Amino acid sequence: MSVDQITPGMEQLDLDEIYPFAIQLGKDAGALLVKGLERRRAESHENEEQIEKMNAVDIVTEVDHEVEAFIHTAVSERYPSHAFIGEETYSAGQSKDYLVDSRPTWIIDPLDGTVNFTHGFPMFCVSIALVHNHVPVIGVINAPLLNQLFSACSGKGSWLNESTRLPLLGKNIGPLPKDAPRRCIFACEWGKDRRDSKESNLGRKVDSFLTMATEPSGRDGLGGMVHGVRSLGSATMDLAYTAMGSVDIWWEGGCWEWDVAAGICLLNEAGGLVTTANPPEDEKWEEWTDVPAVKLGGRLYLAIRPATDARDGSETGRQSQVRVVKEVWKRVRRLDYSRPGA
Amino acid sequence: MSVDQITPGMEQLDLDEIYPFAIQLGKDAGALLVKGLERRRAESHENEEQIEKMNAVDIVTEVDHEVEAFIHTAVSERYPSHAFIGEETYSAGQSKDYLVDSRPTWIIDPLDGTVNFTHGFPMFCVSIALVHNHVPVIGVINAPLLNQLFSACSGKGSWLNESTRLPLLGKNIGPLPKDAPRRCIFACEWGKDRRDSKESNLGRKVDSFLTMATEPSGRDGLGGMVHGVRSLGSATMDLAYTAMGSVDIWWEGGCWEWDVAAGICLLNEAGGLVTTANPPEDEKWEEWTDVPAVKLGGRLYLAIRPATDARDGSETGRQSQVRVVKEVWKRVRRLDYSRPGA
Repeated sequence: MSVDQITPGMEQLDLDEIYPFAIQLGKDAGALLVKGLERRRAESHENEEQIEKMNAVDIVTEVDHEVEAFIHTAVSERYPSHAFIGEETYSAGQSKDYLVDSRPTWIIDPLDGTVNFTHGFPMFCVSIALVHNHVPVIGVINAPLLNQLFSACSGKGSWLNESTRLPLLGKNIGPLPKDAPRRCIFACEWGKDRRDSKESNLGRKVDSFLTMATEPSGRDGLGGMVHGVRSLGSATMDLAYTAMGSVDIWWEGGCWEWDVAAGICLLNEAGGLVTTANPPEDEKWEEWTDVPAVKLGGRLYLAIRPATDARDGSETGRQSQVRVVKEVWKRVRRLDYSRPGA
Repeated sequence: MSVDQITPGMEQLDLDEIYPFAIQLGKDAGALLVKGLERRRAESHENEEQIEKMNAVDIVTEVDHEVEAFIHTAVSERYPSHAFIGEETYSAGQSKDYLVDSRPTWIIDPLDGTVNFTHGFPMFCVSIALVHNHVPVIGVINAPLLNQLFSACSGKGSWLNESTRLPLLGKNIGPLPKDAPRRCIFACEWGKDRRDSKESNLGRKVDSFLTMATEPSGRDGLGGMVHGVRSLGSATMDLAYTAMGSVDIWWEGGCWEWDVAAGICLLNEAGGLVTTANPPEDEKWEEWTDVPAVKLGGRLYLAIRPATDARDGSETGRQSQVRVVKEVWKRVRRLDYSRPGA
């Protein structure tokens, strides 16, 4: 037990008591998102400028604030000793430092997939995580337009709509394919950095996507020939779908802890793996037998779906995940995301 | 009235009677897809080889056959004089000719998004269209894992789950943005042609995606700076989401009539526009005041979401759609898909 864990005021977390509270929060917050969308639908506008303005910024800001304030109030009343980091309040601050310490901390994204939300594209969600000693111990993600509520709690597994355990295919999900990344679904996002340069994050990303997609003989023999390339426009949904087993590989840079905290809990409880997106500096990483756990605030993420052990005993699920991590690292370029000021 | 329409045997179609039948077909077929997925989940496998085999081919073939046979039987019994083209039966034939004539013809894709289906990724659906005189007059798309049933019938509008008229935002969807493709959601798919060449369809596509995504000053001043790039892995869902207004622009080559027939009906009834993906040969296309309607069997599709007239009278919804078509044509390369033998 670390010193942090016995610091006065650090209560033993009663996850059995907190988990249902977090799920209900997710349901209520999801309903607020739908209301925000319906409000917009019903509104009459004087002119296009007003519509465009509502499209772009105001509607999102309004809903973001409302949902975050709702969650913040509920958490503060019930758990006044817990810390709280919300995407909205954090972004309004000056610093972009990593503010999570070892206290129980609620890390919230009131609305992930804001571009989708403004367009009525269903891939948006609220993301609610409780992190303790830097480990996400509860994760709730609600995508209300898809009727998909994801939830997970340490030791209790990952669930879709509280009834279907993840991954969706259960043990029939099998190991990762032997020739992965072939036959894998690869999820990735284009992001906000759109500079026209091979060295911008856009350039590095598209180069990497292309290597993952091209036939095996192409790209200097590195062609990954993935089964499909998918872009949903929400890091949180990408991660939830990886936990579901619907996405095999998710590779991304540039997100923040509130985008991924709940999803990491979901993925861990489902039996997935999450590490860093960038190939390690250590020249000998190809010889590694395991890979480092992701840094919550590291802004670089590579997630691999849950996998079962090979029945012939040749490989554990974890070993097949590590194998796929290396296959991805071989094919992607390093992304350039850091924490401002770090 | 064309000669075709008065050919003996060409009954006047009673769409009021056929439409509910088609919707029920979509619901029943969607339930079969879910059953196929659940069957797979429940199955116990002797070894990984069996799982991998089921993953890749067998499961899809089995479900594809089953759903197409179910629809074919139901249609033949009720409308014995109608023609029928299904993705499965068509693909089994030798020819890839365009077989649609002026008769009432059911054009079916029992399972669009097969890669998604095999991975339990929810973006898959059944697509059912009734085409008359080459025009899709009924379209039903059911994505059962998303609880999204889309339906449309000539003159009756487009609907989500039979209760919400599309586009989702109604008249508040507004015109296309004045600076489109900026602020647009752009949907596109990577496809199956993965040759490592600037001249392969993969090379042409990625080049085009990149131009659409890059900042305005980039790509020789053609950077489209779209708000988001999305890839769902299902042409049918892309088109349904464009009708919904969730996607602003969908650009694709390589699909077949069963992928798009129902979606085209949906899009037309919602007020969208669909034309060809490739910039026209006519050097003066930039001066055009309208664009040609899509060819159902043309394999090249560019769809633009529904749009309302500008309130200041400066532009009709159609004019703004045509403007966006041209903005896309300026930025994309010609794709190389034809009909084998054509």
